[in-house]
Amino acid sequence: MQDDITPEELAQQADLYRPFTQAVRQLVDVTIRTTVGDEEIRRAQAEIEAITTRLRASQLPGSYGVRFGPTGRGRPWGNTVVGLRNPAAPPLAIEHDASGNGNVWSDFHLGAPYEGPPTLVHGGVSALILDQMLGEAAGAGGKPGMTGTLTLRYRQGTPLGDLRAEAWIDRSEGIKTWAKGHIIGPKGVTVEAEGVFILPRWAREAIAAQDPATPTPSYFE
Amino acid sequence: MQDDITPEELAQQADLYRPFTQAVRQLVDVTIRTTVGDEEIRRAQAEIEAITTRLRASQLPGSYGVRFGPTGRGRPWGNTVVGLRNPAAPPLAIEHDASGNGNVWSDFHLGAPYEGPPTLVHGGVSALILDQMLGEAAGAGGKPGMTGTLTLRYRQGTPLGDLRAEAWIDRSEGIKTWAKGHIIGPKGVTVEAEGVFILPRWAREAIAAQDPATPTPSYFE
Repeated sequence: MQDDITPEELAQQADLYRPFTQAVRQLVDVTIRTTVGDEEIRRAQAEIEAITTRLRASQLPGSYGVRFGPTGRGRPWGNTVVGLRNPAAPPLAIEHDASGNGNVWSDFHLGAPYEGPPTLVHGGVSALILDQMLGEAAGAGGKPGMTGTLTLRYRQGTPLGDLRAEAWIDRSEGIKTWAKGHIIGPKGVTVEAEGVFILPRWAREAIAAQDPATPTPSYFE
Repeated sequence: MQDDITPEELAQQADLYRPFTQAVRQLVDVTIRTTVGDEEIRRAQAEIEAITTRLRASQLPGSYGVRFGPTGRGRPWGNTVVGLRNPAAPPLAIEHDASGNGNVWSDFHLGAPYEGPPTLVHGGVSALILDQMLGEAAGAGGKPGMTGTLTLRYRQGTPLGDLRAEAWIDRSEGIKTWAKGHIIGPKGVTVEAEGVFILPRWAREAIAAQDPATPTPSYFE
C-alpha cells in the first residue's frame, strides 16, 4: 500500500510507535514472568482490556502489510521478526554492508517470550530468525524472493540472551538464490541454515495482477 | 522445576492466567493495527508502563521454563508456540490420538502478529509451528528429542487466518526419530516439513547432571 507520507512524517510515526510498541513488549515479557497475587492479575487484565477497546476504536481492517512512501522503500512495520510496530518481534535490526553481495548481520536479544526448552531459544524461533536473515541476504544481493526450501542444522542449544545472526548469498542461478547463515551464541555457532529463495509463479502472477503503480516489495519475508 | 501444585491449584492457575494472557494477545494485535490519534497512543503507553511496573513487583528471575506437578507432567506455559502464559504464542492446542504412533494435529488461527509478506504468514512462523509439531509427534511416539535437522518446503503462500497442522513419525533408529508434517490452508498444503529429533550428547549430559528427583521433560521443544 502506497501512503506517500513524507520523511518527516515517517520519523514522527517511528518516534510515536517505537516506544509504544516497546512498552507492549515489556508487558508481554512480564505476563509470562509475573508472580504477583491473583487480584493484581485480574486488575491488570481489566485495565488492559479497556486500553484495547480504546485502541480498537479505529484500526486497520486486517494485518499491517507493507506500506510504501514516495521513495518506494517498504515499511514492514507489522513483520513478526523486524516489525517496529509488532510487539511479538524482538525486533531485529538487520545491517547490510555496501558490497551488494548480500552480506547481512544482526545483534539482538531474545528473552522469555522466545523460550522452547528451559532457558533455551525455541528451535523454531531460530528457524524464524534465519528465514528472515537469509531472505534479507537474497534481497540485499538484488535477488529478492520467497523461501522455496529452508534447511536448519542444530549444533548446540541456543541460550536465551544476547545473540548474533549472519547471512550471505552462496550462489545464484536465474530467479533462484541460495543463501546461507547461522546464529552465534556465547559458545559459537548454534544453528546453521541454508535456503533457496525464488519468486514462485503464484507470486509473479499476483504481482502482475496488482496495480502497476504499486511498488513491488523489495523482499518477501 | 518441581512445584508440586495439586490438580485443583493447576486448574485455578489456568483459569486465572488464560484470560489474562488472552487480553495481552489482543493488545499485541491492536498495537499493530490501531489508527487512533497520537494522544491516545501516548496515553495507552503510559498506562501500559504503569501496569508493567506493578506486575514486575514480583516476578521470576528469568524465563518460565517447564514446571512439573506431582504427576511429572510438564507445564510449558512460557513456550513460544503452545504457552498458556505466553502472549506471543497463538497458542496452539496440539491433539494426539491414542495409537502411540505419534500422530498429532492442531487447528489454530494466525492473525496480524504473524505476518511476513502482506496478508501471508511469515515463512519462518510456519517453520516455528512445524518444528513444534514434529517435536510433539516424536514425543507422542515415545521418542522425545531436540531438533537435529529440519527441512521446510514451501509449496504456496500460507494466508493469515484459520489453519491446520498435522505431523507424524516417519521412522526411528536408536535415539533418532524422523518426523514429517505439513500446514494446510484453504487451498491445501502450503508448507511441508521433515526433521530428525535426537537427544544430543550435551542434553543427555545436562539431564545426567541434574537432580535425579527432577522429572525429565517429556519433550524438548
